[in-house]
Amino acid sequence: MNKESRAGKVYLVGAGPGDPGLLTLKAAECIREADVLVYDALANWEFLRMAPAHCELIYAGKRSKNHAIPQGDVNQLLVDKAHQGKSIVRLKGGDPYLFGRGGEEAEKLRAEGVPFEVVHGVSSIYAAPGYAGIPITHRDFCSGFTVITGHEDPTKPESSLDYAHLAQTRETLVILMGVERIGIISRELIRHGMSPDMPVAMTRWGTTGKQKTIVGNLTNIADLVTQHQFEAPAVTVIGKVVSLRESLNWFENQPLFGQRIVVTRTREQASQLSQKLSRLGASILEIPTIRTVEPTQKGYLKDAFSQLGSYEWIVFTSPNGVDWFFHWFFKIHKDIRSLGGAKLAAVGPATAQKLKDLHLDVDAMPHKYVAPEIVRSMQDIQSLENVMVLLMRAESPARTSRKN
Amino acid sequence: MNKESRAGKVYLVGAGPGDPGLLTLKAAECIREADVLVYDALANWEFLRMAPAHCELIYAGKRSKNHAIPQGDVNQLLVDKAHQGKSIVRLKGGDPYLFGRGGEEAEKLRAEGVPFEVVHGVSSIYAAPGYAGIPITHRDFCSGFTVITGHEDPTKPESSLDYAHLAQTRETLVILMGVERIGIISRELIRHGMSPDMPVAMTRWGTTGKQKTIVGNLTNIADLVTQHQFEAPAVTVIGKVVSLRESLNWFENQPLFGQRIVVTRTREQASQLSQKLSRLGASILEIPTIRTVEPTQKGYLKDAFSQLGSYEWIVFTSPNGVDWFFHWFFKIHKDIRSLGGAKLAAVGPATAQKLKDLHLDVDAMPHKYVAPEIVRSMQDIQSLENVMVLLMRAESPARTSRKN
Repeated sequence: MNKESRAGKVYLVGAGPGDPGLLTLKAAECIREADVLVYDALANWEFLRMAPAHCELIYAGKRSKNHAIPQGDVNQLLVDKAHQGKSIVRLKGGDPYLFGRGGEEAEKLRAEGVPFEVVHGVSSIYAAPGYAGIPITHRDFCSGFTVITGHEDPTKPESSLDYAHLAQTRETLVILMGVERIGIISRELIRHGMSPDMPVAMTRWGTTGKQKTIVGNLTNIADLVTQHQFEAPAVTVIGKVVSLRESLNWFENQPLFGQRIVVTRTREQASQLSQKLSRLGASILEIPTIRTVEPTQKGYLKDAFSQLGSYEWIVFTSPNGVDWFFHWFFKIHKDIRSLGGAKLAAVGPATAQKLKDLHLDVDAMPHKYVAPEIVRSMQDIQSLENVMVLLMRAESPARTSRKN
Repeated sequence: MNKESRAGKVYLVGAGPGDPGLLTLKAAECIREADVLVYDALANWEFLRMAPAHCELIYAGKRSKNHAIPQGDVNQLLVDKAHQGKSIVRLKGGDPYLFGRGGEEAEKLRAEGVPFEVVHGVSSIYAAPGYAGIPITHRDFCSGFTVITGHEDPTKPESSLDYAHLAQTRETLVILMGVERIGIISRELIRHGMSPDMPVAMTRWGTTGKQKTIVGNLTNIADLVTQHQFEAPAVTVIGKVVSLRESLNWFENQPLFGQRIVVTRTREQASQLSQKLSRLGASILEIPTIRTVEPTQKGYLKDAFSQLGSYEWIVFTSPNGVDWFFHWFFKIHKDIRSLGGAKLAAVGPATAQKLKDLHLDVDAMPHKYVAPEIVRSMQDIQSLENVMVLLMRAESPARTSRKN
């Protein structure tokens, strides 16, 4: 999909339930090519960092009582930006067409002649229970499920929830946004004939490292909410499938589950580490305490690059050093062969790999080659080495962890 | 996630509804690193091609009346392969925990002590209607939705569908796998009080280029199924939200929707083109009619590579030519600088880009440089050129299209 075909188009994109791995390939592509990203309160902010540097980020999120931008204004914003020829991503938690008001936004866009596409996402309706060990369908327990929102349109005069009907269901019942009203909901369901012993599970921050689940039944769930100071938003499952949690709770049993880990690496280097830790169940906060900066005295650098042919060795002391070296190198030279015949040394395997990615052969690794010849050749390229030693020091990641 | 941590583990992975762009990042990663892939009848076979070459592919799919492998055998297969230390992907259409029997497989794995993870997927429950222009929730029409399967457990003595209950719902009703029974379902819903005018939409092959939708109401939908020879499997939506289809039908209005396009490029080159076409709504069938083969007389090739320094020009006549040249080059040389000082010519921008990806500068493009000097230099490297001219001819993609 080339960039031009995205101009003036709005993508209604589902960000999934929170786990960044549950983003779809198409959503990732849309975000990476967005000029404007209009986003709600998301379970994970990592998605925003996927947007290109020029992308305008606009928060349109809302929490229960606090509307950030009225829906009408959001609609108008999408239309205006589209008319400016921008490629717009309207990013919503979960799926845009499941309680996401995506349908309303799509109608407005259609009415104004703005082309749009829907990029469906994994919904927390089933993914949050799934990560809590509860498949919402199971042949032994049900033939389907019903999903309702406990947070209703405040402009509607009376409750549209038909408790008499819901209480008679044979299927799993999933309630979204109903934390504050779980007392009323459970009382009404019992009053209309649902068993007071019916199992209930509530999961908040589902699929993320902060996931919390409480399990009870219709009789005691409201007390458990108070007792655990359990807050919205959450996904509530009412039904016999809740009993499966005991054996199928894979996610919360992961080695790093419940750990909050701060990753202090540079922005560029953090994501791979963050991803690995989050796959082990950790909750990641990226706070880069390091930034790689350009050398202040660029004269040395320029001289060094124009005289590369005169060096016998070039010693790379960190992966960052390789990145910066070639960042500058390719500003001056178009062809990698302009590097000349210098031999290359790398401080360790990660640095060597960076060179190998450029199809350059590493002649020496310092832990083996500490002979005076290499030290001398390092002195020859002192102007560069100032940069690289600095980066190498700064690179060592500080990491703290504590129980969530 | 390193390979070791996947050994002996089963990933219950949702492949999404069919559109390959709706696969999740995590699902793609799991498939790319799988040793064994056990898959059902999927809406899209493209996913299988993402598996590594050594991966064992096992079909465990079933259609309504034709069970390929009994569920018990599938469970045992997963356990056995895990005990062999393999990394196993159990790939299911949609989401593994929504009518996918993922819960049953997870229970078996847990009972046998096999570690597993669930990788949730986008479900056709909402994505297929979404691609047909129907958001299954919308504040103007409902507070939620109910999903049931019309294809029930054949071992159960009587229908577990409670029509009296379903007919009273205020919410959107989604029925899976109910094509053969739509006559009974709609009659029963009317008999229990649902309006005979209630809109109904049925979508098959949802989110793919073969998507087909029929729209009617409870009274006439069974006739429409017969009339259009509409076959299972399909997602059926019953509710007022169906009326939104008229304005929100973005997918079926795409420029290439309904076109079936055969892509005959080499396997390696096809996927990017296929992806672009499928994003425009086309249904893609990849049938590679070309295969790039190694030159039969390798002596010439070896001689040429060992004497690269003696050439003034190297002329690349296709992107495939660049790939093959460097495939062989890096078998002999470790460092790209061993290419020496030869100038490089590329037949066109795609070939030049391949060289630029290797950070090599292109000195000439043949459509500008047809001077006798270049022709002479091409004759110098005739042994290579035999390969590259062949590839260039074979590369031109044949493409046929017809209305689906």
